[in-house]
Amino acid sequence: MRSVIRDYLAEALGDVESDTSGEPAGYIPELAAADPERLGAVFATVDGQVYGAGDIDTEFTIQSISKPFAYALALADRGFDPVLARIGVEPSGEAFNQISLESDTGRPLNPMINAGAITAHSLAGSGELKPAERVERVVHGLSAFAGRPLRIDEAVCASELEHAHRNLAIAHMLRSHDILTEDPRAAVDGYTRQCSVLVTARDLAMMAATLANHGVNPLSGERVIREPVVRQVLSVMLTCGMYDAAGDWATQVGIPAKSGVAGGLIGALPGQIGIATFSPRLDPHGNSVRGVSLFERFSSDMGLHVMEVPAAARAVVRSNHVIGSGPHAIRVLQLQGGIRFAGAERIVRETMDTAPREARVALDLTMVYSIDDVARRMLLEVTRRLTLDGHEVYLVDPETIVPRPDPGDGGRVTVVNDIEHVVTNKP
Amino acid sequence: MRSVIRDYLAEALGDVESDTSGEPAGYIPELAAADPERLGAVFATVDGQVYGAGDIDTEFTIQSISKPFAYALALADRGFDPVLARIGVEPSGEAFNQISLESDTGRPLNPMINAGAITAHSLAGSGELKPAERVERVVHGLSAFAGRPLRIDEAVCASELEHAHRNLAIAHMLRSHDILTEDPRAAVDGYTRQCSVLVTARDLAMMAATLANHGVNPLSGERVIREPVVRQVLSVMLTCGMYDAAGDWATQVGIPAKSGVAGGLIGALPGQIGIATFSPRLDPHGNSVRGVSLFERFSSDMGLHVMEVPAAARAVVRSNHVIGSGPHAIRVLQLQGGIRFAGAERIVRETMDTAPREARVALDLTMVYSIDDVARRMLLEVTRRLTLDGHEVYLVDPETIVPRPDPGDGGRVTVVNDIEHVVTNKP
Amino acid sequence: MRSVIRDYLAEALGDVESDTSGEPAGYIPELAAADPERLGAVFATVDGQVYGAGDIDTEFTIQSISKPFAYALALADRGFDPVLARIGVEPSGEAFNQISLESDTGRPLNPMINAGAITAHSLAGSGELKPAERVERVVHGLSAFAGRPLRIDEAVCASELEHAHRNLAIAHMLRSHDILTEDPRAAVDGYTRQCSVLVTARDLAMMAATLANHGVNPLSGERVIREPVVRQVLSVMLTCGMYDAAGDWATQVGIPAKSGVAGGLIGALPGQIGIATFSPRLDPHGNSVRGVSLFERFSSDMGLHVMEVPAAARAVVRSNHVIGSGPHAIRVLQLQGGIRFAGAERIVRETMDTAPREARVALDLTMVYSIDDVARRMLLEVTRRLTLDGHEVYLVDPETIVPRPDPGDGGRVTVVNDIEHVVTNKP
Amino acid sequence: MRSVIRDYLAEALGDVESDTSGEPAGYIPELAAADPERLGAVFATVDGQVYGAGDIDTEFTIQSISKPFAYALALADRGFDPVLARIGVEPSGEAFNQISLESDTGRPLNPMINAGAITAHSLAGSGELKPAERVERVVHGLSAFAGRPLRIDEAVCASELEHAHRNLAIAHMLRSHDILTEDPRAAVDGYTRQCSVLVTARDLAMMAATLANHGVNPLSGERVIREPVVRQVLSVMLTCGMYDAAGDWATQVGIPAKSGVAGGLIGALPGQIGIATFSPRLDPHGNSVRGVSLFERFSSDMGLHVMEVPAAARAVVRSNHVIGSGPHAIRVLQLQGGIRFAGAERIVRETMDTAPREARVALDLTMVYSIDDVARRMLLEVTRRLTLDGHEVYLVDPETIVPRPDPGDGGRVTVVNDIEHVVTNKP
Repeated sequence: MRSVIRDYLAEALGDVESDTSGEPAGYIPELAAADPERLGAVFATVDGQVYGAGDIDTEFTIQSISKPFAYALALADRGFDPVLARIGVEPSGEAFNQISLESDTGRPLNPMINAGAITAHSLAGSGELKPAERVERVVHGLSAFAGRPLRIDEAVCASELEHAHRNLAIAHMLRSHDILTEDPRAAVDGYTRQCSVLVTARDLAMMAATLANHGVNPLSGERVIREPVVRQVLSVMLTCGMYDAAGDWATQVGIPAKSGVAGGLIGALPGQIGIATFSPRLDPHGNSVRGVSLFERFSSDMGLHVMEVPAAARAVVRSNHVIGSGPHAIRVLQLQGGIRFAGAERIVRETMDTAPREARVALDLTMVYSIDDVARRMLLEVTRRLTLDGHEVYLVDPETIVPRPDPGDGGRVTVVNDIEHVVTNKP
Repeated sequence: MRSVIRDYLAEALGDVESDTSGEPAGYIPELAAADPERLGAVFATVDGQVYGAGDIDTEFTIQSISKPFAYALALADRGFDPVLARIGVEPSGEAFNQISLESDTGRPLNPMINAGAITAHSLAGSGELKPAERVERVVHGLSAFAGRPLRIDEAVCASELEHAHRNLAIAHMLRSHDILTEDPRAAVDGYTRQCSVLVTARDLAMMAATLANHGVNPLSGERVIREPVVRQVLSVMLTCGMYDAAGDWATQVGIPAKSGVAGGLIGALPGQIGIATFSPRLDPHGNSVRGVSLFERFSSDMGLHVMEVPAAARAVVRSNHVIGSGPHAIRVLQLQGGIRFAGAERIVRETMDTAPREARVALDLTMVYSIDDVARRMLLEVTRRLTLDGHEVYLVDPETIVPRPDPGDGGRVTVVNDIEHVVTNKP
Repeated sequence: MRSVIRDYLAEALGDVESDTSGEPAGYIPELAAADPERLGAVFATVDGQVYGAGDIDTEFTIQSISKPFAYALALADRGFDPVLARIGVEPSGEAFNQISLESDTGRPLNPMINAGAITAHSLAGSGELKPAERVERVVHGLSAFAGRPLRIDEAVCASELEHAHRNLAIAHMLRSHDILTEDPRAAVDGYTRQCSVLVTARDLAMMAATLANHGVNPLSGERVIREPVVRQVLSVMLTCGMYDAAGDWATQVGIPAKSGVAGGLIGALPGQIGIATFSPRLDPHGNSVRGVSLFERFSSDMGLHVMEVPAAARAVVRSNHVIGSGPHAIRVLQLQGGIRFAGAERIVRETMDTAPREARVALDLTMVYSIDDVARRMLLEVTRRLTLDGHEVYLVDPETIVPRPDPGDGGRVTVVNDIEHVVTNKP
Repeated sequence: MRSVIRDYLAEALGDVESDTSGEPAGYIPELAAADPERLGAVFATVDGQVYGAGDIDTEFTIQSISKPFAYALALADRGFDPVLARIGVEPSGEAFNQISLESDTGRPLNPMINAGAITAHSLAGSGELKPAERVERVVHGLSAFAGRPLRIDEAVCASELEHAHRNLAIAHMLRSHDILTEDPRAAVDGYTRQCSVLVTARDLAMMAATLANHGVNPLSGERVIREPVVRQVLSVMLTCGMYDAAGDWATQVGIPAKSGVAGGLIGALPGQIGIATFSPRLDPHGNSVRGVSLFERFSSDMGLHVMEVPAAARAVVRSNHVIGSGPHAIRVLQLQGGIRFAGAERIVRETMDTAPREARVALDLTMVYSIDDVARRMLLEVTRRLTLDGHEVYLVDPETIVPRPDPGDGGRVTVVNDIEHVVTNKP
């Protein structure tokens, strides 16, 4: 029995296969020689499951898709402040080969254009690293995202270096503004090596899935970067990832994404999925023609747009009833679903604004699927206030979705596995 | 007993109150005369609950906050194609008073700069409307978002019109490119009236909540715009709403937002909440100083960043067990939580890839909180394939979260309210 | 016997006649309807002689050729400071329809682009003039340049006003920066009337000749503007007159010039000649195709490039000899040619550095053709120093090329008509 | 007895000496260490006379003043077409450190900005030269302009090379557009050596005088470049020489000029004079503060503005009379002054349009000071037409200002030294 998703992917590839518009990148022979018919697509889930169709194990160079990952490594290795001081986060509204430096400071507008990406490369690893060590750090970092050791295509790298005059121009300009503090030639050399790392669509999907999975590689379980870095990288991908078509992408596709000139294209939807496609023919923006079509379809078919929200959901308060009567009566709020701020607000409202008359109040979390920080804090604040008002409060939490609950400041809560415990253990 | 959330808001206002940097807009006397100490913040939930602190019922002019709503009305009244042909969606990277037209077509880069907003105003309502009727349509539309009839501050409007030379310049330029097809003075007059609509922070929060609530006003229940329009508007607010600081906002706050020169600031997080703040002192970008601080705090405290996802959630498959044995055995998958593509994928995988040996398979949706389109379609496809493989399939769905399930094409599914029904009704 | 120059012009027209590339301006029907085959060229000398060939008496609208003249009127009527405060003199490097305002002040970059020209129009005449009076002042001023009363083509003007949205945009933008202080619509209306003045190639040549003739109309003898204004206008025409092809023009043609969209083109070479051509087909810069060809030929054939200097000329000191001997000996320096700083320097050098032994020194100006201010001052300073050194100094100046010579400060000089007077009137 | 001009220069220096605004260039220690009080000014006439005051023999590096000379060498060594294909002539309206390449071709806008100057350096000498040979060619060429062997300041050069990142950026960008075809590092190295050539104010004035003297060094008599190159270089200096203040300079000073960051400033007025000043403090445009003041004064005091023409001159036809009567009568036109097109036109007009009745016509050139090509051709055409009409024509030209006159095509002219020869030699 074959996979539903794999069937879907195969069908999607079939639909775009006939589109032979665009041309593979032609500025170096190695890219120009790419087989333009290659076509593949991969979904990687945040628990490591991979679905693919087409050419998903063909190796090609990662090129600009390395940019968000090298930016992530720079943020991880140096911290936010030094990186933000040298690389902006503003959309440039310009093509990928524009310089786009801030006119006064020389700071690249964002890490997705070459100027920002060369700077990001130079900030990966500690400041003490030698150029070769920095390349090693970056390749190692990219490998951690992919979950397997990646290697450089030396032939592509050598050819790219022969055509690196624009990047050298950018690097010297950055050096003249002290944005780069190392030898510009070494930075371009290292950046070019970074772009020459060989990947497959499968690798790219796993790298994207690592971003979607809060920075933890779903297969290896390695935490590659911390969550604030993930958030920063995904935000920048959403607003700057597709060059001068960023707005079109943000409205129509709405998935943080990045494309590479060798034909790769990735997207990462936090908490859900990493996606990669591979097709070498490029549109005038430098993005894969069929890759863009596939992403438009994926976003639309699967509701992956970041501004998409599930249609009306069940109430977070499944039931609100009283068990027993008199002094033994227990007010039970049975909660359900994923609770974030909006859900917590409703729980708080129902709990507090309809001040319970019962002495005992139980919040039943058995059917709660997920709960975030702010919701947890709000529920604990409710228990604290109930305590102060003289109530005895129970948390029914058989699977410990709220570990070690501490309402603090006079609050008190009793955790039980089952509402029956409360009912039977009358006070 | 007072609200936890109201306390939180009051505390947040207290923290920013001491920041008296910035200046109210001074280009017309009416704005310059605003009390700079005014300060208010409002949360409006998608079910219509309003939490506020400070000056939440003070009226002020909506100004640029009208832009996303008028854009929404244009999309709703004319459809996407005619509007996209005249107004782009690309971040401009420029200040609000730049012209920012595409050099070849004269198309404004996006609807959040004045050129785009004037164009959007001219596209609200049908093309046959007279200028005064168009203003009426816009005011009526803004009122529908707010849930109460709004009115124009004629004194501010008259004063703005005396200082409308930049907007007149923009409108004539748009007219010369045939982006505007009506009299430029009428368009500027109408746009200025739109900007002079009086609102309170409470109104603004409700308008934002209408966006957060899929386009339905939470109080009136009126569907003001359809979901694709909501998605378009929120996407553009996220990438272009805060002028030349769009990237900073997208990374640090991550909430689709819009500010107005009278001191208002709104944010809308789809499915969760509408937020509004009011404080007249502006930073050099033209955004409310204290408003920006409050949003940074709200985003951070409450995990509202669009790239934020809840920390590790419980598995969507709560349990996978067999009830009974032999030919009567039933494979039961107990599902839970909110199910979107990623969750559905896991369910499909667990169901299909471990092809059950049991003849009867039940998917128990009792603890499922929400389910979106793609997830619903995937579950039905699973039931179809199970049917074709000779299984009998049950959906345990006591609250009809999947109405009228039809796997189609040879699939068949039996809906029951309780797993017990299946166990006892042996085949 | 026909004129050598008229023959030359006819031959030149014949050579360019076959070039039918380009198109007449098509934005209004009146211009689009121009007969594209019309072709004429006129030379007007600074003493009023006119040579023409082809369509030199066909009327067409002056359009942008009015710009330098209106700028001249503004400078004449308001003085330099108020005009320079509102209109820059920097080349814009941009097409004629760009806005090109300084980003901080809103000041138009120069008076040859529309923004600067609209501003210049508004500065013609006193600040108290009503719009209609200002138009009258401008038409009167243009007429003074042409030497005959000019009138407005009302049909063209009305049609232009219907397509004036870009100019209205510019004017409102200027008003928003307080560069314009009057009603933008009135300014555009007036400017459009200015551009709709009807002229012939003959008129244009005479207008150019007025600039070439230090601001005095060669025919009427009326001083239209003062010399500093002429210098300013010619300088700006040289660097900004041909829009974005200014550098090409300055190097290849080297004549201060201005073109109009109706097909006119003028050039003015100070002290020598005014030139006008008329041919309606325009190149992509908006300049007359055949007009540009003609000017290239005129400049090359006639050595009219401003950086062209006559080949080696005779020495300014024609002879330096002594007449008589003993105490009656006279040192005679016979001067010749046009004397400017460089010539005066040689005279001073020869006179002073070879300190004459003779008691009497005569500077013979009989063969001097012209002498400028600085040269006159330098010669007088020489006579003063010779006096202080005990010499008796004579100026032989039969035609009073140095009127009322006064060396000042102890100097003394005797003017005679003939060196014989000095020789015979022994001291 | 001291020179009038030297006194004038000393007085001018005294007047600007107190202005200590601005700062010497500080980006390398060698320039920052310059004595800011140094001040000198030199006039060099086109016959080699030098007047100086102040620090005229202090050596400093030529810097950007080398740009027009290297451009001249490129034009001389390669011809116009290859150079114009790689370097434009349009004013950039930008500061000296902007890149200013044409967006499509990558061609630098003009040779006075660094991009154009680096390109010009690479085009000096033949295309086969090795980098070191090219530097030799450039230094040799600059020396020819100066009239003495110049040498490189190796310390400044080495220091500049350490801060050459912006120039390296520019050179790599030029290389990426194939504007530069050699190694960018070699080009920047060579250009930096060119800028490090040591000169004095005296040298610079002589270099400028070589431009003013049609490309012939006034002292050595060496023709360094041909006249069309001179014209091109002076035109570009006038429109682009003073960076973003080009328009101010063209209107207020009106002398083709170039400044250097070490404090030098030159101006060249064709046919008249070369000027150089030296004062290290720079204004924000990068031009010498006191140098600019001095040039403004020189231009104004001495009428050096290119658009300045001598006030009304004597008529070019000094007299028009008949000697003798009957068949022996001779019509004599006594000409005077410098004759260019405008003068020749008047002579032609007077001669032809008043078709003489006398059989013999004499044009007396005795008092003619200079005559240019077009004027010579026009006079000869007049003689030809007179011959064809049956006149006998004489040229009285004792000093051979019109050598070997040949009217051609049926024309005939007799050259005599004295009108008496004609009178006595009756036909």
